[in-house]
Amino acid sequence: VAIGTAAGGPPADTARTPGAGRRPAEPAPEAGCTGGEALARYLQAQAASFLRGLSLRGENETEADALLCGSARRIAGVLHTYRPLTDEAWAEHLRAELGWMAALLGREPEYTGRLARLLEALRRLSAAGDAADSAAPPTLGAARAAALLERQLTLARTRAHSATLQAMGSGRFHAVADAIAVLASEVPLTPAAGHTATSVLPPLAGQAYTRLADAVDALPLHRAGHPYNAEAVEAALGAELTADLRDAPWHQVRVLLRLTRYAAEVPGAGDAGATHLSEAAQLLQRHHEAAESASAVAAAARTPRIAPATAYALGVLHADQRHEVEAARFAFSWLWQTGSAPHARSGLPDRQFSAAPGARSQ
Amino acid sequence: VAIGTAAGGPPADTARTPGAGRRPAEPAPEAGCTGGEALARYLQAQAASFLRGLSLRGENETEADALLCGSARRIAGVLHTYRPLTDEAWAEHLRAELGWMAALLGREPEYTGRLARLLEALRRLSAAGDAADSAAPPTLGAARAAALLERQLTLARTRAHSATLQAMGSGRFHAVADAIAVLASEVPLTPAAGHTATSVLPPLAGQAYTRLADAVDALPLHRAGHPYNAEAVEAALGAELTADLRDAPWHQVRVLLRLTRYAAEVPGAGDAGATHLSEAAQLLQRHHEAAESASAVAAAARTPRIAPATAYALGVLHADQRHEVEAARFAFSWLWQTGSAPHARSGLPDRQFSAAPGARSQ
Repeated sequence: VAIGTAAGGPPADTARTPGAGRRPAEPAPEAGCTGGEALARYLQAQAASFLRGLSLRGENETEADALLCGSARRIAGVLHTYRPLTDEAWAEHLRAELGWMAALLGREPEYTGRLARLLEALRRLSAAGDAADSAAPPTLGAARAAALLERQLTLARTRAHSATLQAMGSGRFHAVADAIAVLASEVPLTPAAGHTATSVLPPLAGQAYTRLADAVDALPLHRAGHPYNAEAVEAALGAELTADLRDAPWHQVRVLLRLTRYAAEVPGAGDAGATHLSEAAQLLQRHHEAAESASAVAAAARTPRIAPATAYALGVLHADQRHEVEAARFAFSWLWQTGSAPHARSGLPDRQFSAAPGARSQ
Repeated sequence: VAIGTAAGGPPADTARTPGAGRRPAEPAPEAGCTGGEALARYLQAQAASFLRGLSLRGENETEADALLCGSARRIAGVLHTYRPLTDEAWAEHLRAELGWMAALLGREPEYTGRLARLLEALRRLSAAGDAADSAAPPTLGAARAAALLERQLTLARTRAHSATLQAMGSGRFHAVADAIAVLASEVPLTPAAGHTATSVLPPLAGQAYTRLADAVDALPLHRAGHPYNAEAVEAALGAELTADLRDAPWHQVRVLLRLTRYAAEVPGAGDAGATHLSEAAQLLQRHHEAAESASAVAAAARTPRIAPATAYALGVLHADQRHEVEAARFAFSWLWQTGSAPHARSGLPDRQFSAAPGARSQ
């Protein structure tokens, strides 16, 4: 089921769109507003948020970095989706620089999150869930594996922190900040941006959606929708390259989802089932984190001279994270195909059985 | 939802019975046939099968042992379920001896199956499924883990084989064989066995079913019915005792299922949804094999002086087998509650999405 033409905004084909329950559309731009005006307003708001992030850095680094990262990604994404509306050379350069910055700023929180995820998983794997059992001490292997991961990921985080600080003092960073400050007052538009917003924005947003939908169609959704199909775990002990190649299309969809969501945030762009896209994005974020965590565990297991008990615990943890990858794919498949997520680990254990996956697919 | 009384045969409560699609009932005993006659005929057929197994041992040991084991379990199970109908002291003693024998004979094929299962899982984990990837050599850790498991499980199998041979030459074994030879012609019945089969057999078979249904009710079926709930994997790194305690109720249900199935094989006992009970039994057999395999892997990982890469591969394999435990619980939960098994790993990957779990639960 390919969407024939990219023009005309997000398709109405509900078999491909997580359809029901869309969030209310953004306020429509005033009548007669041009595409350039709508885009410029969005970019300026993001630029202001970026500058707020910069000034906040002295007080709260974590919050500031999240603001900087979020607006950098949004500006870059929207410049990509609506590229016929802005000066090409300028946009191309700014996007590259914002990409560099967002990647840089994203690294530290990623390591923090990864460590928390892995320590939590080790706790779950080494003691049972209920109070009575949780008194049991973790096994030696699990404790050592936790210590090893803590050491390695804390080191990585510290390095990322230094790299960020150093980059922020660099001329390259100041140039990006200057460009954003200019953007806050002035966006270099093309003549095409002079058409009405409702005539130029939806087709471009629709193209972004089509790219996403095509990429999702190429995923093995049918297999992923069968629980415990073990695809994501296959090759867990094989060459790392094989596993990476198999994860890549899912990571690509995650990126396209982000672009589609940002594109829809521009007022007048139309609404591509935004609520469900954001749910889907969260699932693929979980997919990404689990896959990256599994790789971090595999890397830790290659540390020379670790004890067999440590290696064993890391092996269990690796497989556990690959199963988390599989669980995220399962949930994404159901969300995409039925419009409602199944209740996986986060589901209520005492939920009515009839509310389990598939019950709503009819 | 407790079944109020044990009398009256398997309850019609379809919420608890895997209900639809029962197999046609066993041929009913002739009118006026007593419970004792029906039971004796079944026991005599099983005794004949046992004796056939004994005489077959010179030609085909594997097939012979399967026959011996199957009829020993059936005779013991049926003597248990219908114990008011046979001499108590005689039945009690024979059951204990048959239990000893069945356990003995079952060990060798168990080790064979466990090794095959684990080597197959290692293959799946170390190379990808499709032809292009399967050319990749297994990693060193996976190859060493396979060699270690092969060594340990082959040794265990050889020991089990010797133990069986030795036991078969013992006076204890000959006494069991003699008792079965007597059983083939004569069953010591009680006065209660003189009532008609249709009046005495169904209530006793119903009691067996009630014990099964009560035990299933006590299982965390709701949680198990949510895919990827990770309960079976919890404590994978914890004290082995904890994991064993959590598996025990499932193993207990497997034993009760077997008793219920054997009880229903006696003509005139009534039909407790035999087709689905046999499907359910297969799932719990898979559950049992995966749990035992995970324990065997944990034991192998405690071998002194193994390389970290070997230990890592064993850790991945252990978690994988615990996930197989979880997958079996998931399938059992769905089968028990909806009367149809979901399509887990063995399902067709290109199956219609709407045929996935839950679609038939409405």
